[in-house]
Amino acid sequence: MANPTQQRATINLLQQPSSQAWLNLALANLDTLLLDHSHCERKAAAVALNLMFRYPSRERLVRQLTVIAREELEHFEQVNAWLARRGVPLAPLDAPPYGARLKALCRRPEPERLLDSLLLAALIEARSHERLSLLAQHCPEPELAAFYDSLVVSEARHYGVYWVLADTYFPRSQVQDRLQALAKTESEILATLHSEPRVHS
Amino acid sequence: MANPTQQRATINLLQQPSSQAWLNLALANLDTLLLDHSHCERKAAAVALNLMFRYPSRERLVRQLTVIAREELEHFEQVNAWLARRGVPLAPLDAPPYGARLKALCRRPEPERLLDSLLLAALIEARSHERLSLLAQHCPEPELAAFYDSLVVSEARHYGVYWVLADTYFPRSQVQDRLQALAKTESEILATLHSEPRVHS
Repeated sequence: MANPTQQRATINLLQQPSSQAWLNLALANLDTLLLDHSHCERKAAAVALNLMFRYPSRERLVRQLTVIAREELEHFEQVNAWLARRGVPLAPLDAPPYGARLKALCRRPEPERLLDSLLLAALIEARSHERLSLLAQHCPEPELAAFYDSLVVSEARHYGVYWVLADTYFPRSQVQDRLQALAKTESEILATLHSEPRVHS
Repeated sequence: MANPTQQRATINLLQQPSSQAWLNLALANLDTLLLDHSHCERKAAAVALNLMFRYPSRERLVRQLTVIAREELEHFEQVNAWLARRGVPLAPLDAPPYGARLKALCRRPEPERLLDSLLLAALIEARSHERLSLLAQHCPEPELAAFYDSLVVSEARHYGVYWVLADTYFPRSQVQDRLQALAKTESEILATLHSEPRVHS
């Protein structure tokens, strides 16, 4: 089967597109994927808020991540409304290894920590954007597909914001080199499909 | 001088009103108070989000705290706009002992931890409501006073939400007994005015 992302515009931040195997797993487990998606939106709000706490004097970062945190909470509400509509109760769900493995790549000393935090957030948003786009295209339930489609524009804006913030605070060449290295690992992590259906399996 | 809150409707959750000394300190340091207020709004969003993380299956808590977190982020944006307008740059600020001393009262085992977390959040919101009301009444700058007044209704709703959540998950008598004990300590903490101008000095 052709790679499902070959028909789409290139997501420049990502080094490898998602596999058909991921899409098949996701489409066969739409309820579980929605529940995991809910957790992802809450975590995305927390990522933005944590950066606002860690860098309280960075005016541009604080201003732009406030908007992102609010939007992630709106999406969280919307996904939860879909869960309620489908009779899926809110519940904890084991996270796939993706987030922890990416987090381990973040260097601890500043200013590298800021650069890595922004680029890792950009990559996660870019992957979410790519995968929600695939669900919007291939989900067999038209209303749910339309919902995914409604989220895609925000996800794209979010990874743009994180990238622009990195580009604001660091030289372009440093941003590009580090992004390339992180993006390579991000694709490698996803090359082995996690057995449970998750947004980032 | 008469206690400044004696003219106002009773805030039932609080055992003692704020002192005139606090109000004098606040009014003499409006810029610092605004900067601290900005930190308070961001922290309030984090409190709501952290509870959403800790209790992901509590539907009512998750739904209502999502709304609160979004509103706190809106207030954070609004306070930051006021800081920008007054030429006060975003910056870290030492927190007064209030938050840490209240947090130390939270029992660790569940379900007591949930009860205490909700009631402490309710008390902090109630105190914020009382103090923002005082600023709305006494701030010598009419536009800033009007801004404080615009926030007062939300703060009241927020402490109501936390109280109702406690009342949803725990027997009324248990909620009332614990609230009384926590409120007593909350007032005792504030009986000694912190030397720096803060919302919770």
